[in-house]
Amino acid sequence: MPSPKPPTALRVTVWGEGLHEQRDAGVAERYPDGMHGAVAQGIAEHLGEAAVLRTATLAEPEHGLTEEVLAETDVLTWWGHLAHREVSDEVVERVRRRVLAGMGLIALHSAHWSKIFTRLMGTTCTLRWRSVGERELVWTVDPAHPIAAGVPHPIVIEQQEMYGEFFDIPVPDELVFISSFSGGEVFRSGCTFRRGHGRIFYFGPGDQDYPVYHHPDVRRVIANAVRWAAPRGGGAKPRLEHSDTGWWAAGGDEQP
Amino acid sequence: MPSPKPPTALRVTVWGEGLHEQRDAGVAERYPDGMHGAVAQGIAEHLGEAAVLRTATLAEPEHGLTEEVLAETDVLTWWGHLAHREVSDEVVERVRRRVLAGMGLIALHSAHWSKIFTRLMGTTCTLRWRSVGERELVWTVDPAHPIAAGVPHPIVIEQQEMYGEFFDIPVPDELVFISSFSGGEVFRSGCTFRRGHGRIFYFGPGDQDYPVYHHPDVRRVIANAVRWAAPRGGGAKPRLEHSDTGWWAAGGDEQP
Amino acid sequence: MPSPKPPTALRVTVWGEGLHEQRDAGVAERYPDGMHGAVAQGIAEHLGEAAVLRTATLAEPEHGLTEEVLAETDVLTWWGHLAHREVSDEVVERVRRRVLAGMGLIALHSAHWSKIFTRLMGTTCTLRWRSVGERELVWTVDPAHPIAAGVPHPIVIEQQEMYGEFFDIPVPDELVFISSFSGGEVFRSGCTFRRGHGRIFYFGPGDQDYPVYHHPDVRRVIANAVRWAAPRGGGAKPRLEHSDTGWWAAGGDEQP
Amino acid sequence: MPSPKPPTALRVTVWGEGLHEQRDAGVAERYPDGMHGAVAQGIAEHLGEAAVLRTATLAEPEHGLTEEVLAETDVLTWWGHLAHREVSDEVVERVRRRVLAGMGLIALHSAHWSKIFTRLMGTTCTLRWRSVGERELVWTVDPAHPIAAGVPHPIVIEQQEMYGEFFDIPVPDELVFISSFSGGEVFRSGCTFRRGHGRIFYFGPGDQDYPVYHHPDVRRVIANAVRWAAPRGGGAKPRLEHSDTGWWAAGGDEQP
Repeated sequence: MPSPKPPTALRVTVWGEGLHEQRDAGVAERYPDGMHGAVAQGIAEHLGEAAVLRTATLAEPEHGLTEEVLAETDVLTWWGHLAHREVSDEVVERVRRRVLAGMGLIALHSAHWSKIFTRLMGTTCTLRWRSVGERELVWTVDPAHPIAAGVPHPIVIEQQEMYGEFFDIPVPDELVFISSFSGGEVFRSGCTFRRGHGRIFYFGPGDQDYPVYHHPDVRRVIANAVRWAAPRGGGAKPRLEHSDTGWWAAGGDEQP
Repeated sequence: MPSPKPPTALRVTVWGEGLHEQRDAGVAERYPDGMHGAVAQGIAEHLGEAAVLRTATLAEPEHGLTEEVLAETDVLTWWGHLAHREVSDEVVERVRRRVLAGMGLIALHSAHWSKIFTRLMGTTCTLRWRSVGERELVWTVDPAHPIAAGVPHPIVIEQQEMYGEFFDIPVPDELVFISSFSGGEVFRSGCTFRRGHGRIFYFGPGDQDYPVYHHPDVRRVIANAVRWAAPRGGGAKPRLEHSDTGWWAAGGDEQP
Repeated sequence: MPSPKPPTALRVTVWGEGLHEQRDAGVAERYPDGMHGAVAQGIAEHLGEAAVLRTATLAEPEHGLTEEVLAETDVLTWWGHLAHREVSDEVVERVRRRVLAGMGLIALHSAHWSKIFTRLMGTTCTLRWRSVGERELVWTVDPAHPIAAGVPHPIVIEQQEMYGEFFDIPVPDELVFISSFSGGEVFRSGCTFRRGHGRIFYFGPGDQDYPVYHHPDVRRVIANAVRWAAPRGGGAKPRLEHSDTGWWAAGGDEQP
Repeated sequence: MPSPKPPTALRVTVWGEGLHEQRDAGVAERYPDGMHGAVAQGIAEHLGEAAVLRTATLAEPEHGLTEEVLAETDVLTWWGHLAHREVSDEVVERVRRRVLAGMGLIALHSAHWSKIFTRLMGTTCTLRWRSVGERELVWTVDPAHPIAAGVPHPIVIEQQEMYGEFFDIPVPDELVFISSFSGGEVFRSGCTFRRGHGRIFYFGPGDQDYPVYHHPDVRRVIANAVRWAAPRGGGAKPRLEHSDTGWWAAGGDEQP
C-alpha cells in the first residue's frame, strides 16, 4: 500500500511473481519479505521520500496491476521466473500500453523471459545459463550514465546464476554494464531501451537462489534505474495522426 | 514462380497485399503487374542473376508464405496497407521465427503498420500522415552505408504521401535516410534494425497513389537493401541454452 | 562573474566569441548583452537558483578559460563563428581534458566547426549552408529524452540560417531533434555524444543574423541540455592502468 | 609489393611498426615475416584473389604511407606499440583525410593508442592491461554482423595480454565482440565506428608476446573486417558547401 507522500514523489510499483518464496524454504529464509520486498527496500533505502512504493504479485486479482494502479505508477519493476505463462495477456497488454505512454519499466534478471519484456523487445530474449554459484563481476562501460552513478568498478557478486551470450535482444540503446562470470562467459547485464515514450532498463543480477537483492551495489543500481526511468512528458500512447499542412501554426503538439 | 538460377543466388520473396490493384483503376493502371510486380522488377533490374525472385500475395493460401516458401527465402519484402488485420497470426509468427533465424525483411512504406513489423518492433509504429501529393526529398545521413550506394543526394520524388514524425519505432540501429516533405515535416525514412539473426530495413517511399516503385532511385535503394539483408550465418532461431562450465572446449557454437 | 550561490548549484560557463557584436551594428542591436549574454539569460530563466552562471569571451586572457575557471565549471556552452582559428590550441586541449574528465559541453550552431568540437569528434564536422532567412522546424524524434522536455513539436523558428546534410559527424549516441528548412534540406540538429566521462550536446539553432537566442523554446532546449550534461561522477580523465589480477578485492575503482 | 591483380580487387595495405621483431628474439621467432607479415598472410588466406596486399613499416620513408600508396589503398590495417610518438603528424593527418574520404581502417590491439586511432576517436583510448598470458574468450554479441561470419562462439585464445574496461572510446556504432579474460576482466574487443565516408574496426586480440596472428579465427575476423571496411562510394573528404535553394534540380550530389 502506498504511504502518504507528496504528489511529486515518484510512484513506484514493485512487481514480484511471489512463488519461489512460498515453495522453497531457502528462498523464504533468504527473502523473508519476498523478493519484491527486498527490491522495494533497496529502492526505499536510496530514494527515501522521493519515492512512494507499492508492491504487487501474481496471486492478486489482475496480478495487482489494475488500470488504477498502473495509472498511478511512474515506474514498474518486474521480477518473474516460474510462471511467465500464467501472467494474463490482458494485463501484459495493459502494461505495454502504459510503457508506450511513458511509464518506466525495470526488468530484473529472469524477467528477460517475461511476456512483457519479450513483447516490447520483439525477439526471443533467450540466453545461455548455468546455476552453480559463480562469482559475477559487473563492469561499467558507460561511466557517464546516471544508472552507474556511485557504484564500484567492478561490482563483485560472490554467488550468482550465470547468464551468458548470445542474449537475443535488440541492440540496446545504451549498454551500461557488462558482466563476466567465473566460468568465463560474458553478458550484457545493463541495457537501456526506449519504446514509445517509455524507458526500459534490463538488469541481469538477481536470483532466487542467492541473496543478490540484499547486495548494496545491486540495490543502488536498481534505485538509480528507477530514477532514470521516470517519465518526462505528458503521457499518451503514440497514435496515428492525420495532419493538414501547417497544422502546427496553433502551437504544435505538446508532445510528439 | 522462381526462375532456374544457381543455388547461390539470393532467394527473394516479394510480398504484396494485392488489393488496391483490384479495387482502384488508377492503381491498376499505375501498377499493371501489381505493386509487388513493380517492386520485383526493380530488384531484378539491379541484382539480375544474383537474385531469384518470387512473389506472393494475401489472397493465396497461407498468403503464399508456407513453411516451404519461407524455408527457401533469404530476404522477404513486405507491402501492405488496407488489410493488415486480415493477415493470419499464424503466418505472422512463422515469418517472425524465420527473421529471428536470419531471414532478411524489407518493410515498405505502409508496412510500418503491418503485423509482422509491429510485432518485431514492440511499439505502435504510428506516425503522422497526409496524402496531397507532396514532393519528398530523401537525404542520406550515412553515406558509408551499402544501402545508400549509388543514389543521388537527395533522391527527389515528385509526388508522395507525407509520413512525418513522431514515428513510434525503437531507436534504429542505423539511420540511413531522412526525408523532408514540401509541407515541412521530416521522417526517418531509412532505418535498419537487427532482431535475432535477422536484418530488417524499413523504407518510407512507396504508395499506391503515386508511381514511386517505378522511380529508379527508389528501386536501387530496395535492391541495395535486399543485398544488405541477406543472411550471414547458418540459421536457427536463438534458443535458451543450458551450458556446463567450459562447454566450448569441443569447439564452441557454430554460431552464437 | 559568478554570483554567490550554494555550492551544489550547477556551475555553468557560457563562452562566446564576442566579435560579431562589435563589428556589426545589427548583431549589437539584436544582442545588446552579447550573444553569450542572451544564452546565459536563457539558462538563468529556466534553471534559476539551480545554476551559477559566468560568461567568458575570446578577448579575455586565455579566452577566459583558465585552469581555475574550468575547474569550477560543470557545464560549458560554446558559440563561435568568425575566429575558430584564433582560439589557442592550449586552451582547446585544456577544455578537452576537462570534458574527458566529466565536464559537460554544449556546442551551439556554428560551433560545429570550432576546434574543441571537431577535436572531440574526429571528423571534419562540415555541412551544407545558406543564409536567406528560412523557416526552421525542429522536430523531436526522441520524446522520452530530457533535453526535449516541455518543447512543442515542432519548434518553429521563423528565420534562420539553413544548415543541411551531409553533416560530417560521428553517428550520434542519441538523435533528439531533426530540423527541416523551407528550402527542403534536413539537418540532425540535436545530437548527443559521450566522450570519456563527459557529455556533449550539439544544437543547431542559433545565429548572429537572427534573434534565435531570444526564442523561448530554443532557450528551454539549451537549459534542458545544460542540466542533462551535468557531470555524474568524481571526475578524472581516463588513464592507462596496469592492474594485477584481482586488484578489485580492495573495493574496486570509485569510477571506471 | 603489390602483386599484379585485376583492378577490382581490394587494395589492402598492412602497416606494422616493425620494431619488436628487430629488438626481441622471441618476437622474431614467433613472427619470422614480421607481425605485419602474419597479418597479411591471414588476409591473403581468406580473401585470395579478391585482395591485393602490400605491407609498410615505420622505418620506410614516410613510413611507407606516401600519398601515392594511400591513393591506391582501399583498406589500411594498423599495428603499433612501442613507437606511436615517432609516427609523423603529417602522415597521420594524411591517413585521417583518406579515412574521411572513404578508406577503411582496421586498428589492431595496441593500435588503440596510436595517433591515428585516438585522433579519429577524440578520446584518450586508454584501458586497463596486464600481460600474464591469460586465456581470452571472444564472444559474438552481433551474430548477424559480417565481421562475425564463420567464427566459433567463443573464439578461444589460449594466451593473451589482458585488455580491460574502462576502455575510453566513444560509444561504438556496432559492438560485435566482447572478450573475457581468465582474471575476470571484460573488454569491448570488436567495435565499429564510422568517420566521414570511412569505416573503422577496432579488434582487441593480437600481441607481440603471443602468436595470436597465427590463430585461424583471429585471421578470419581480420579478413572479414577488411572486406567489411571496403569503401562504398566515390571518395572525397566531406567539405563545407554553400548551396542555393533547389540546387539539386540538376541531379543532386553523387554522394553526400
